[in-house]
Amino acid sequence: MQEITVSTSNLTYSVKIGRLDKIIHKGKVLVVSNPKIAGMYLQDLLDCIQADEVFVSIVPDGESHKNFESIDKILEVAFESRLDRKSLMIALGGGVISDMVGFASGIYQRGVDFITIPTTLLAQVDASVGGKTGINNRFGKNLVGIFHQPKAVYVNPLYLQTLPKREFSAGVAEIIKMAVCFDKDFFNWLKDNDLNDRDCLEIAIARSIQIKANVVSLDETEQGIRGALNYGHTFAHVIENETNYHTFLHGEAVAIGMRMANDLALKLGLMSVENIKSIDFLLNRYDLNHNYHIKDVESFYDKFFLDKKTQNDKIKFIFPKGIGDVAITDEVPKDKLFETLKKWGK
Amino acid sequence: MQEITVSTSNLTYSVKIGRLDKIIHKGKVLVVSNPKIAGMYLQDLLDCIQADEVFVSIVPDGESHKNFESIDKILEVAFESRLDRKSLMIALGGGVISDMVGFASGIYQRGVDFITIPTTLLAQVDASVGGKTGINNRFGKNLVGIFHQPKAVYVNPLYLQTLPKREFSAGVAEIIKMAVCFDKDFFNWLKDNDLNDRDCLEIAIARSIQIKANVVSLDETEQGIRGALNYGHTFAHVIENETNYHTFLHGEAVAIGMRMANDLALKLGLMSVENIKSIDFLLNRYDLNHNYHIKDVESFYDKFFLDKKTQNDKIKFIFPKGIGDVAITDEVPKDKLFETLKKWGK
Repeated sequence: MQEITVSTSNLTYSVKIGRLDKIIHKGKVLVVSNPKIAGMYLQDLLDCIQADEVFVSIVPDGESHKNFESIDKILEVAFESRLDRKSLMIALGGGVISDMVGFASGIYQRGVDFITIPTTLLAQVDASVGGKTGINNRFGKNLVGIFHQPKAVYVNPLYLQTLPKREFSAGVAEIIKMAVCFDKDFFNWLKDNDLNDRDCLEIAIARSIQIKANVVSLDETEQGIRGALNYGHTFAHVIENETNYHTFLHGEAVAIGMRMANDLALKLGLMSVENIKSIDFLLNRYDLNHNYHIKDVESFYDKFFLDKKTQNDKIKFIFPKGIGDVAITDEVPKDKLFETLKKWGK
Repeated sequence: MQEITVSTSNLTYSVKIGRLDKIIHKGKVLVVSNPKIAGMYLQDLLDCIQADEVFVSIVPDGESHKNFESIDKILEVAFESRLDRKSLMIALGGGVISDMVGFASGIYQRGVDFITIPTTLLAQVDASVGGKTGINNRFGKNLVGIFHQPKAVYVNPLYLQTLPKREFSAGVAEIIKMAVCFDKDFFNWLKDNDLNDRDCLEIAIARSIQIKANVVSLDETEQGIRGALNYGHTFAHVIENETNYHTFLHGEAVAIGMRMANDLALKLGLMSVENIKSIDFLLNRYDLNHNYHIKDVESFYDKFFLDKKTQNDKIKFIFPKGIGDVAITDEVPKDKLFETLKKWGK
């Protein structure tokens, strides 16, 4: 079992990559999952848990259910099961589940521990590490939440064998994001290797988690460099909001957002056409070539202001500087931005 | 202006006692208050604020409104006003308002700063210092929330001139609590002085805040000594829950809870009859002699298990050891506890 360490202000924890072993906890445990994942993997997990008592809460799947109603459902079960401050919550599922369990455990009795067991590629390489938790509301994505670091993360690549192809690709989008922003060697490696190969995939998962762990350890609460992980996300969050979180998986929206960011970076002289082509090449290989039609450029623009990254009414963008480096700026001329938006508005 | 410093893991902040001066903030400010307090003091506060933009949210008053609905109302205004991560929330009101604004600001975009301006005696001496935030639900009091320290606390004793007599007494209950648990000299001083005298009251406020600040600095997240501040509260939370937060003010319920705790402490040999009499003498002087009738001892007992202090199904009690010291224990024989409960059940 491979272990990667994440260091944060209040605690240090491990991301363990490999087959799930025993989870031992002195106290009560509440496992939260969604119907589909529970059907496939809940029993296996329950067999691994040694605790005083184990309870289960099943909440609906999907970004459209990442709301306070689901949090309330999790809390209800926690209260009815009389979980106390020494209890543990476990998230078994994708990013939606880990974001919600991180939040619910963080506000239950002012905070109990939680562990995440990500079952999607996206959650394994990105969402489950770093302590960002939260829910969506009508104003946008992840707008309500807290920083709450997990006690441990268990990444089991075996779960990916049953992952639908679209979800696999959505996860690859975040892997490509990490490489573009932080690691040129990794990017070149991705060009030469196929993530459909299981060994390659495990290498890419470990490398992505290592990048994420480094970034989070440097900047837990996103005062600076951690913001770079939002490459593509400034656009993606608006796209997801406009489509009510129904049309695209998060990683698919991020892929569209990366292309938009690249287009704008080109206009600003930060990227070359060659670099953009090499990113497009990788995205296309994993079918991350979704179209998006911006119906109303003005209203799309307005929605940037609901993003957490927007401060003092300035929109924050993350642009690759070539491959392996990144620029964060809130000084993008509105006319340049509108040129890019209009390109998707035709 | 007198200043008391509170040191916590992530930040150090001041409690400023005296007339409110200027509050300068680069960014947006959202002031949250209740209808009654806003009517009396909002304009004065707005005159003191220098900020880019100032917004106001008014939420209903009282413990029965300290729920997620009110949090949602505050967040709505925050989103509609496009508050960002550099924005500031200000709580103008009693403990209900400061608990809710602390929670709302802590989960808005994963956390923005907040300042509390407590307008009740109880909030000035206790609730506004220490970073405990949260809301009630059908399972009990303050069961959902986070630790979120304010950026500053402004205590203006002038607000107390319009405080209803009952609310004044409720605040005195927490002052007496501090003295009994932590400070024998202060307790004796309380016996010799009348808090209806304005100068005496200001001395008692400062002394209580100093005690609270010391305890919080020692044990921010209540792993040990901070638990002592819950003297009387184990019982009080059940009483408040049984009466739907309508019958008693929090401090009134705490006074009943202190008497119950004292009765049990006497049975356990931790307190003398003389000490109990001297506490009763102080409570009675401020009309803190409310009766409570426990209708069903078993169901009262059951409700202890919803308290955050209950762990591994053991109820945690705080008992004075004489005056000025305290014992925290979760090893109270059930029969002794039932004897005390039955005394209030007659």
